[in-house]
Amino acid sequence: MKLIVTVMPKNGVLDPQGKAIEHALGTLGFEAVGEVRTGKVIELELAETDPARARAQAEEMARKLLANTVIESFRVELA
Amino acid sequence: MKLIVTVMPKNGVLDPQGKAIEHALGTLGFEAVGEVRTGKVIELELAETDPARARAQAEEMARKLLANTVIESFRVELA
Repeated sequence: MKLIVTVMPKNGVLDPQGKAIEHALGTLGFEAVGEVRTGKVIELELAETDPARARAQAEEMARKLLANTVIESFRVELA
Repeated sequence: MKLIVTVMPKNGVLDPQGKAIEHALGTLGFEAVGEVRTGKVIELELAETDPARARAQAEEMARKLLANTVIESFRVELA
């Protein structure tokens, strides 16, 4: 079963990479670009076939390893 | 209008960060974890209100700046 974990900086946490992209898009001529935020996406292949249990496993992985929950939030989707 | 651009390494392109996560998950006691692939996610706020045109703009941004299309593929979603 394939799952997608998306990890984003929490609101209020500085995102210098996002700011750099925002600036670069302006330089490339893209106007009317508002806030840009960047994060990570992790695609996992789990042997678990039950969707609820697979999701619970992925959430535990996110809490323990994939995300720093002090400054990042995460969401888990089934792919 | 908010859009989400997800950039992933193409199949066959090495992903050392994914391999490191795979290994770390094993060390933490998560078994039966198959392949792990990592990518970037970029959330954009565009002034454009037409969904089709906003998507086209984001795809152009991805081709020109956000993704290296030689080794990475991308997808654009409306948030």
